[in-house]
Amino acid sequence: MKDKLNFACDYAKGAHPAVLRRIIETNMVKTTGYGRDEISESARNRIRKACGRPDAAVEFLVGGTQTNAVVIDALLRSYHGVVAAETGHINTHEAGAIESNGHKILALPQQYGKIPVDELEKYLDDYFSDVKQDHMVMPGVVYLSHPTEYGTLYSKGELQAFRKACDKYSVNLYVDGARLAYALACPENDVTLEDLARLCDAFYIGGTKCGALFGEAVVVPDPKKIPRLFTIIKQHGALLAKGRLLGIQFDELFRDDLYLKIGEPAIKAAASIKAALREKGYRLFFETPTNQIFVVLENDALKTFGEKVEYGFWEKYDDDHSVIRLATDWGTTESETIALIDVL
Amino acid sequence: MKDKLNFACDYAKGAHPAVLRRIIETNMVKTTGYGRDEISESARNRIRKACGRPDAAVEFLVGGTQTNAVVIDALLRSYHGVVAAETGHINTHEAGAIESNGHKILALPQQYGKIPVDELEKYLDDYFSDVKQDHMVMPGVVYLSHPTEYGTLYSKGELQAFRKACDKYSVNLYVDGARLAYALACPENDVTLEDLARLCDAFYIGGTKCGALFGEAVVVPDPKKIPRLFTIIKQHGALLAKGRLLGIQFDELFRDDLYLKIGEPAIKAAASIKAALREKGYRLFFETPTNQIFVVLENDALKTFGEKVEYGFWEKYDDDHSVIRLATDWGTTESETIALIDVL
Amino acid sequence: MKDKLNFACDYAKGAHPAVLRRIIETNMVKTTGYGRDEISESARNRIRKACGRPDAAVEFLVGGTQTNAVVIDALLRSYHGVVAAETGHINTHEAGAIESNGHKILALPQQYGKIPVDELEKYLDDYFSDVKQDHMVMPGVVYLSHPTEYGTLYSKGELQAFRKACDKYSVNLYVDGARLAYALACPENDVTLEDLARLCDAFYIGGTKCGALFGEAVVVPDPKKIPRLFTIIKQHGALLAKGRLLGIQFDELFRDDLYLKIGEPAIKAAASIKAALREKGYRLFFETPTNQIFVVLENDALKTFGEKVEYGFWEKYDDDHSVIRLATDWGTTESETIALIDVL
Amino acid sequence: MKDKLNFACDYAKGAHPAVLRRIIETNMVKTTGYGRDEISESARNRIRKACGRPDAAVEFLVGGTQTNAVVIDALLRSYHGVVAAETGHINTHEAGAIESNGHKILALPQQYGKIPVDELEKYLDDYFSDVKQDHMVMPGVVYLSHPTEYGTLYSKGELQAFRKACDKYSVNLYVDGARLAYALACPENDVTLEDLARLCDAFYIGGTKCGALFGEAVVVPDPKKIPRLFTIIKQHGALLAKGRLLGIQFDELFRDDLYLKIGEPAIKAAASIKAALREKGYRLFFETPTNQIFVVLENDALKTFGEKVEYGFWEKYDDDHSVIRLATDWGTTESETIALIDVL
Repeated sequence: MKDKLNFACDYAKGAHPAVLRRIIETNMVKTTGYGRDEISESARNRIRKACGRPDAAVEFLVGGTQTNAVVIDALLRSYHGVVAAETGHINTHEAGAIESNGHKILALPQQYGKIPVDELEKYLDDYFSDVKQDHMVMPGVVYLSHPTEYGTLYSKGELQAFRKACDKYSVNLYVDGARLAYALACPENDVTLEDLARLCDAFYIGGTKCGALFGEAVVVPDPKKIPRLFTIIKQHGALLAKGRLLGIQFDELFRDDLYLKIGEPAIKAAASIKAALREKGYRLFFETPTNQIFVVLENDALKTFGEKVEYGFWEKYDDDHSVIRLATDWGTTESETIALIDVL
Repeated sequence: MKDKLNFACDYAKGAHPAVLRRIIETNMVKTTGYGRDEISESARNRIRKACGRPDAAVEFLVGGTQTNAVVIDALLRSYHGVVAAETGHINTHEAGAIESNGHKILALPQQYGKIPVDELEKYLDDYFSDVKQDHMVMPGVVYLSHPTEYGTLYSKGELQAFRKACDKYSVNLYVDGARLAYALACPENDVTLEDLARLCDAFYIGGTKCGALFGEAVVVPDPKKIPRLFTIIKQHGALLAKGRLLGIQFDELFRDDLYLKIGEPAIKAAASIKAALREKGYRLFFETPTNQIFVVLENDALKTFGEKVEYGFWEKYDDDHSVIRLATDWGTTESETIALIDVL
Repeated sequence: MKDKLNFACDYAKGAHPAVLRRIIETNMVKTTGYGRDEISESARNRIRKACGRPDAAVEFLVGGTQTNAVVIDALLRSYHGVVAAETGHINTHEAGAIESNGHKILALPQQYGKIPVDELEKYLDDYFSDVKQDHMVMPGVVYLSHPTEYGTLYSKGELQAFRKACDKYSVNLYVDGARLAYALACPENDVTLEDLARLCDAFYIGGTKCGALFGEAVVVPDPKKIPRLFTIIKQHGALLAKGRLLGIQFDELFRDDLYLKIGEPAIKAAASIKAALREKGYRLFFETPTNQIFVVLENDALKTFGEKVEYGFWEKYDDDHSVIRLATDWGTTESETIALIDVL
Repeated sequence: MKDKLNFACDYAKGAHPAVLRRIIETNMVKTTGYGRDEISESARNRIRKACGRPDAAVEFLVGGTQTNAVVIDALLRSYHGVVAAETGHINTHEAGAIESNGHKILALPQQYGKIPVDELEKYLDDYFSDVKQDHMVMPGVVYLSHPTEYGTLYSKGELQAFRKACDKYSVNLYVDGARLAYALACPENDVTLEDLARLCDAFYIGGTKCGALFGEAVVVPDPKKIPRLFTIIKQHGALLAKGRLLGIQFDELFRDDLYLKIGEPAIKAAASIKAALREKGYRLFFETPTNQIFVVLENDALKTFGEKVEYGFWEKYDDDHSVIRLATDWGTTESETIALIDVL
């Protein structure tokens, strides 16, 4: 495992050195539990500031599936469902976590992982004009991921259009930012933390894949949207006794805007790899601006490739080809990138 | 906060130095996700060995409430409930996590946090002979904590009697070992890891309060008892992407039997404090052999005490007195203990 | 079965003749489904009038357990539980229906099936002043049954006190009226339908045990309390396609105040039986003013008794005695009553 | 309402005269509750005989959504989902009942309401060979409706192929027979009750739309498939206190094979209407052999039509046309049919 190049995912190693250092420094400090300590409060304030919302509720959770399950459940009543792209992580690879809380996922068609705005508009118009709507699941939240599971990005204009579509029917908008740092570090991205705080009812800032050992920060710009969030988190088994561990990490990730820059090495590495792939005549499955690259490989070539590089199998392309994913991260080094390009 | 003595709880600081060191060492190693890495596998094997069950399923979860919710849900069918002491953590301070998964808690009377064996026997006999049992919730699991929420211990004889009572009606037995290290380090304890593996259908070995940064290790001695455990964990939002973080910690906690000894400083400190309390004429709420001490203090005295020591408020005793909890842990130092005794 | 006297329960036969006649008359009339027909609307209006709330929401459901599960779930958010007497039907004989919807039952001590007002006040005061309340299940509804499962009655004064206790903490009050007709026909009762509509956030008027073939009418005096009730009913599988069947029955039960008088034969018969029991030296388990009588019988005597009369076994009294229940209903005849007294 | 022709649905009137007569006859008979009476047992035996399975479990429930929710939940573990056609009733018009019990619906493409066998085979092969399957919802039941929501029928050969596909991966097969009587009375149908009992793990025989006042009969050919079914029914609020009401109806529906013939008037009427529609140049949305007819009408013509006939609006066809549904039932008379044809 150690001798091979590893581009299989963006959660294969530990924490950014600054984050780790802070965990070490604070190890023997005694604090109040459950994230009610001073460091967690400092982290909350830094995030509130970065989002331009001094009044936002900020809570720290452990992982992405958990965060999606908790926040979506908290935003919904029992008769509500959540609208998501067919390829949305909650609809494919979270083992039914949303449904286990009682909520249907109302899956919409997608393009490269994104819900086209007009698909959402049409869906909402249809539901709210359907004479049988009382027999159907009512949409209560729209779930987007930014970047998407396919590494693509929504534009600010698209998010504004989603907000407008949601407002028409008082539906909530929630953004899964598991890889948000890679959007923020990406030249093609025009969506800021302040935009998310202005346009969403809730979103989360991913830590696990973006420099933390683990952890995600949920932001609820208007805390009245989710009463009793702390208890809801506890009920979901998502409250960390030593909550300060999450506070410590996010306090560091938001010190001096580290989070805004932490994804840059990944974006730079991905750009080099994509350029090399194109130059060498590989077929990209489609264009992605962030840290995930999807390539179509002939199966025999893949076998050889797999001996030198850990990659993520994505899907079968046809009988002779496969789609694989290569992921860079905050810690991808230039030498790793060069070594990978050499293998191609 | 830093200047005061802090005996409020046993999850106020970070990790045991050995655990932290291993996290640091492995930080930049790339591994497979979701606990399927080599270090996690090594940790599993060490735990299997310590439990005398080379075939046991071992999975690592993040926290206690989560672990209880996942394992109990996994052991039950929809028509089942879980038997617990009225004071069981799942019945009091987990915000309804068990019920949120659809299961009733069948609460039994307790003494100092323990279910008397005959209470369980009577309850099961009554249920299984009740002509209306088809209209009632069927007991599917008995939940015990060892040590209990009150720091008391079950004897091996008691656990054997519970096992027998459960076997009579094919009910599962599950032990919450959030503070198991403090039982294992306690002279009064005669229950070993091997006993638990022999007597329980599932139990967990607590890390969060016993030297880990965070994390709990679930042991299912007979893996056939819980098919698809991995998926169940995922569905509950309890699967850590960087699962190796948990493996790393437990691999260290079970290297050279560290876990069996890690609670000793806590037990030693607690013994000194209890001796001092008795000597100085304080009233212990009741006797506890492990790392939690419950003392009755006059309210005015408590105010003064609280200026010097962080403590856990437990409950009102009468109009003039309160019950407080003092907790020691694996890292409690002799100087802290002496300082606390000075304050008394 | 046909030759024996049957006082086992109050749901052993079909419908009151007037109700049955109406079902027959309307059998071949075609109506809109799901209770949106004219007869159901007429029934709603009659109930609204009887409750003095022309604006109330009224929905018809099929059975009691279903109604409790739907209404309580509708009144609660995910972090809420429901307060009930330990002996409350939802806590004992509904097979965990409340918990299967995710809600904990917060059981309080009781006397003859009733929650003492001060027990509720103390519980709510304790919860809302508990420093750990965020880790606990929040009370969202108080569940009472009137008459209780033991045939006892709350007074209007007690209900007013419950209302006040609930208002202090914005908790909802819900009354299960499975046997409400037997309260309304009872001289000891001073609680009217108008009182219930003024004091409760929701309650149901029992049909199944009170003259209907089957069915219960839920009244929500302020419909804003439960948005989307129709969809919630549907989601619970509790929406009858031919909803008009329920409307037809309640339209008849509320024609000319039939429901207010329908329980009278049961109360009269029960009074005669209780008088005979006392006269003949039987021990009543406790006094009940409504249609359920609890008697302590010596086990040998019970055997003989059981050869002539179907009764309900309630519980073991001691090694030699049992508590049994005798229930009268809207259709109990004088000759049946006399025959039973003869057997005694 | 009474003056208009009504072909809006097949649950607009009461019960078949024989069923109603039996309800009347038994009205004042006292029986044991919860379907444990002699008449219900007789009904069970008649159904068992009709299915050729003397050992089958048979339980009576109140309505279709409820039955689907209960049986599917009973067949699944928490980590399972249910495979259904995108147009399956559980996926569209049951308000999220399946998800409210925690289970994802795994929706497959359909043709005229039917799942093509190869779609199911491909889906199951894909899932069970997916390297990420542990992160996905595991298929536990395949849900079919026969007739489908579109009035189409599966052939015996297709059901055998489904059975084979399910057996390959130990998945259960469940058939929703809400309108089963209309299949059984249909010349195109080659699936018998015995076939269903041999090929399915569970199915239900619809009463509400097929001659009963209300009620559905669940058949579990091998009772070991669903332990504790009675308690599961109770927990779902689906147990009728006067269960005998359902037994009475099904005892009558299965006396002298009434159920096998009861749909004939509906099929005959539908055939006449379809012939008239074709003759008069109407466009059928598609061909359906059973009691539901889907016609495309120009919107202006529909307005005139709607003044004389109650119909079911199905969906928008294009800007100028709509699809409507006309449903016949067991009680549709020749004169009604002629009157409708006159209107066309």
